[in-house]
Amino acid sequence: MIEESIKIRVRYAETDQMGFVYYGNYAEYLELGRVAAMKKAGVSYRELEEKGIGLPVREMKIKYLRAALYDDEIEVITTIKEMPDRLIVFEYLIKRGEEVLIEAETTLFFMEKESNKVIRIPEEMKDQLKPFFS
Amino acid sequence: MIEESIKIRVRYAETDQMGFVYYGNYAEYLELGRVAAMKKAGVSYRELEEKGIGLPVREMKIKYLRAALYDDEIEVITTIKEMPDRLIVFEYLIKRGEEVLIEAETTLFFMEKESNKVIRIPEEMKDQLKPFFS
Amino acid sequence: MIEESIKIRVRYAETDQMGFVYYGNYAEYLELGRVAAMKKAGVSYRELEEKGIGLPVREMKIKYLRAALYDDEIEVITTIKEMPDRLIVFEYLIKRGEEVLIEAETTLFFMEKESNKVIRIPEEMKDQLKPFFS
Amino acid sequence: MIEESIKIRVRYAETDQMGFVYYGNYAEYLELGRVAAMKKAGVSYRELEEKGIGLPVREMKIKYLRAALYDDEIEVITTIKEMPDRLIVFEYLIKRGEEVLIEAETTLFFMEKESNKVIRIPEEMKDQLKPFFS
Repeated sequence: MIEESIKIRVRYAETDQMGFVYYGNYAEYLELGRVAAMKKAGVSYRELEEKGIGLPVREMKIKYLRAALYDDEIEVITTIKEMPDRLIVFEYLIKRGEEVLIEAETTLFFMEKESNKVIRIPEEMKDQLKPFFS
Repeated sequence: MIEESIKIRVRYAETDQMGFVYYGNYAEYLELGRVAAMKKAGVSYRELEEKGIGLPVREMKIKYLRAALYDDEIEVITTIKEMPDRLIVFEYLIKRGEEVLIEAETTLFFMEKESNKVIRIPEEMKDQLKPFFS
Repeated sequence: MIEESIKIRVRYAETDQMGFVYYGNYAEYLELGRVAAMKKAGVSYRELEEKGIGLPVREMKIKYLRAALYDDEIEVITTIKEMPDRLIVFEYLIKRGEEVLIEAETTLFFMEKESNKVIRIPEEMKDQLKPFFS
Repeated sequence: MIEESIKIRVRYAETDQMGFVYYGNYAEYLELGRVAAMKKAGVSYRELEEKGIGLPVREMKIKYLRAALYDDEIEVITTIKEMPDRLIVFEYLIKRGEEVLIEAETTLFFMEKESNKVIRIPEEMKDQLKPFFS
């Protein structure tokens, strides 16, 4: 299992006129969470793209339990519970202190960017992640 | 049942460097879809808020089947299948021509904005929606 | 001179907790305005990019006179006053009915996307715009 | 004079299909810069709003010299050069290492949120800023 936690400060631009973070903007926080989780295993998403591989999202599920507010410091805890193969599944908790704000899950797949063709997890990334799942 | 369809043109700002619409931005399209679906039944979301009632999202599920591209004209088809009470569920298809790009579902609840208290569907809105579900 | 007007409906996502459109989001409205202004002369920004040419912004000035609100129908009036060569300057008014909300100006340049090299206006686009400036 | 520097990591969501940060998104970085500059003088923008005072933007000017890329660590250096009264002017440099990417300036005013009435700088904030301008 890979688990990583990051802290994010809510920006003014991310709020809407209800006074909370706009519901679509949590997707950005999740993205930051999964980039951090991959980095923990030595995988740089930036480099992955530079090698011609993209990681598009196939599915997202979000439960909104409590709303984040402007200037809140929130914590995104991201876990990869199973060794990825064709798909990579990330689970997330977003918290403010001890309060859980968001529970979420995203499923992504690997894509050769030039051809837009679906591929398996690249060998190099497989080797980097394996030690976390044995 | 209420069903409504709207057309949206994808903006440049909505793309990311993978060349597709950023996965979090579909939430905006869904929002436009449900506003249109409510309007079909005579419910103005703007007026709802002016009367002190908000409609926060409790849950969102999105399946990304195909990616939308810059300048695409996409269609958001939104349906309310069951008469809402405490919760209101919207289902969505986003299409480009005959191709389905997105399948999604959101569940929202009613909130008294001043107190942030959860409430039932307002009586007036109930009366407006009822004829569609008998 | 080229002048074009488009109508845009303000989205909920574009507001912030002050209850107005977030100041950075007007940049999207300007983008829609200039795409429409170019289209009036037969220039498709999408096709320009498909031919390998980008139009990055070099400078933006915005005066915020009045705030746009959720669900407002606003009008973006975009003008190109001088025949572009190395640079292309767009001027904008954003109005709500008779009220002027925004005065803005952006300067863009032409770029060969593959090399990121600055170029002159493409010959084809020059021919399309010329009739408007004689 | 007040001067403050912050570091920001560019998010994937902030890029567009040209492969750079979308030109409108720099407004968010500027906002983070000025919040930090005010905090240096002990002024919390969050608390200012909680006391009923908003700081809308009246004018923004941005020069785009070089583009920021995904995952870049950029630095936003924000300065307040003159003691604010009715207006408060922020100047910004956004850098990546030694390279200057952006030069910008924004002018904001003080507003009583309940009435949307323009006001002078609040006395308490005046007292907090004064020591920096003598």
